Amino acid sequence: MEGALHTFGPTLVDILAWVGTLTFAVSGALIAVEKRFDLVGIIVLAGVTAVGGGSIRDIVVGSLPPQVFRNEPILWAILGVSLLVWWISRQLEPGRLNPYLERPIYYLDTLGLGLFAALGAERGLAFGLGFWGTVFAGTISGVGGGILRDVLAGEVPGILYRNRDLYASAAAGGAIAVFLLYPLSPDLALLIGALTTIALRLSSRWLGLRLPTPR
Amino acid sequence: MEGALHTFGPTLVDILAWVGTLTFAVSGALIAVEKRFDLVGIIVLAGVTAVGGGSIRDIVVGSLPPQVFRNEPILWAILGVSLLVWWISRQLEPGRLNPYLERPIYYLDTLGLGLFAALGAERGLAFGLGFWGTVFAGTISGVGGGILRDVLAGEVPGILYRNRDLYASAAAGGAIAVFLLYPLSPDLALLIGALTTIALRLSSRWLGLRLPTPR
Amino acid sequence: MEGALHTFGPTLVDILAWVGTLTFAVSGALIAVEKRFDLVGIIVLAGVTAVGGGSIRDIVVGSLPPQVFRNEPILWAILGVSLLVWWISRQLEPGRLNPYLERPIYYLDTLGLGLFAALGAERGLAFGLGFWGTVFAGTISGVGGGILRDVLAGEVPGILYRNRDLYASAAAGGAIAVFLLYPLSPDLALLIGALTTIALRLSSRWLGLRLPTPR
Repeated sequence: MEGALHTFGPTLVDILAWVGTLTFAVSGALIAVEKRFDLVGIIVLAGVTAVGGGSIRDIVVGSLPPQVFRNEPILWAILGVSLLVWWISRQLEPGRLNPYLERPIYYLDTLGLGLFAALGAERGLAFGLGFWGTVFAGTISGVGGGILRDVLAGEVPGILYRNRDLYASAAAGGAIAVFLLYPLSPDLALLIGALTTIALRLSSRWLGLRLPTPR
Repeated sequence: MEGALHTFGPTLVDILAWVGTLTFAVSGALIAVEKRFDLVGIIVLAGVTAVGGGSIRDIVVGSLPPQVFRNEPILWAILGVSLLVWWISRQLEPGRLNPYLERPIYYLDTLGLGLFAALGAERGLAFGLGFWGTVFAGTISGVGGGILRDVLAGEVPGILYRNRDLYASAAAGGAIAVFLLYPLSPDLALLIGALTTIALRLSSRWLGLRLPTPR
Repeated sequence: MEGALHTFGPTLVDILAWVGTLTFAVSGALIAVEKRFDLVGIIVLAGVTAVGGGSIRDIVVGSLPPQVFRNEPILWAILGVSLLVWWISRQLEPGRLNPYLERPIYYLDTLGLGLFAALGAERGLAFGLGFWGTVFAGTISGVGGGILRDVLAGEVPGILYRNRDLYASAAAGGAIAVFLLYPLSPDLALLIGALTTIALRLSSRWLGLRLPTPR
């Protein structure tokens, strides 16, 4: 959750960042439901997925407390989303919720990934990081929450092997675009960075592009 | 380990925080013994369980190095406790140690949870966090060490699903009490916060209260 | 990656730290190949193994961003090593690469462990930590990357139980030597610290020394 200080459409960036954050929260809550965690587990997994990436980034760039810990409204919204997912999951047969949500979550998640990668890369630049530091800051903002979610849920993080489409590498691509374009125009860099990530992810699925794996 | 600066009974808070920390250390060491870790594993798991929660909290509020890293006596005591658990475990048949310790550990652990939640919430307030930041600081102080312990031991963190009694939610309840009462009286807030957590946990077990789980 | 400011042989320390870092990167990349992770997984696991220990140490001592995030050349080299391991692994039958590398990796890894433990302990001292804080800073510099690597790869960290030779305890021994000798001579302390770790590890394997485990 960030972006409130941007000159171009702070409102739009804010809304999109909210959408991205809450999508991540839903994805964490759904996995907790699938694993039959209790209500605390659902809230924790939703929260970690939603704010974990940005928090790791802020810890690493040294901006503490992490931004999101001062953003009370989004934290309330994450709690609300967790309770909602939990309540809906009680109304349905086990496993009935996920099929309906898979498609919208895929698109919202892609949107969130693009935004977080671009805004995270900007934050790395703001704290004086170089090329790799910026790429790390952008990528971890996008994928860090999912990594923590998977580790807590007892799974090997999906980004390391799942390989259905470009994900971490799409985030890295967006962060690289931000790094390269930022000296020209910060606003343009953010826009193109986010679009780069989104385009990489969508096109990789449509075209069946995948990362190479070992023989 | 904290509280040395409180005006009401610094000695009492200090003693209780020692008791809580070393109880957490014992619980980590026992799990390491159960998993047949070697001596380094026992010391690491005891240390992580004892100081992990407060360290995550201090990293997130931006108070680095974490308080406990400057508290040499407690770190020596954690080492001593680890060696003691290891030595005793060598004298007994495997599995003979835990039954005797289950009951005292349950009560000491509840005491530690209450104290850490209250003192952690205070620390969040001291660093200017709002409602959710304070609740997070208190809760993670109480449960963070156990989460790290379980992840390192290759288990899904018990607080996400185990659900025998209120644990993370008891810590959150205590932190909320601290947040609400602190403007009235810091000392009272700490006292009532710790008692809230302890009462929630004990009563949830006695009354058989549990968190709802998915169907 | 550190040491550039030392008065005795900065070049030598730098070269050795590069060797140690890249050895850690290779060990992470090889495990990723073994687990059949994709290219992102290989790069992530190589990077985490190489820079994770120093980053945890820098987070804990409060030196943010972690040193290594400002060291662009080593980050490029880690990427290069990851790609190289991946490329070689594509040329060979699965499992054919590791046997050839086991022996050189063992020795380079021991060298890296000794250096990181000594340089990490020095950094703890520089940030005003006491005995245990310094031992922690040295040890986590040496073993933290491997712990993160194992957790991400879905394994219980090897240092907790594997117990073929002294590893974390060898790093701790080197850090203790640095702590004790630093007041006499920083340069000597680093040298003897690194050699202590290396000697402990090598001799423990040669002599078959192991840590005690529970019955």
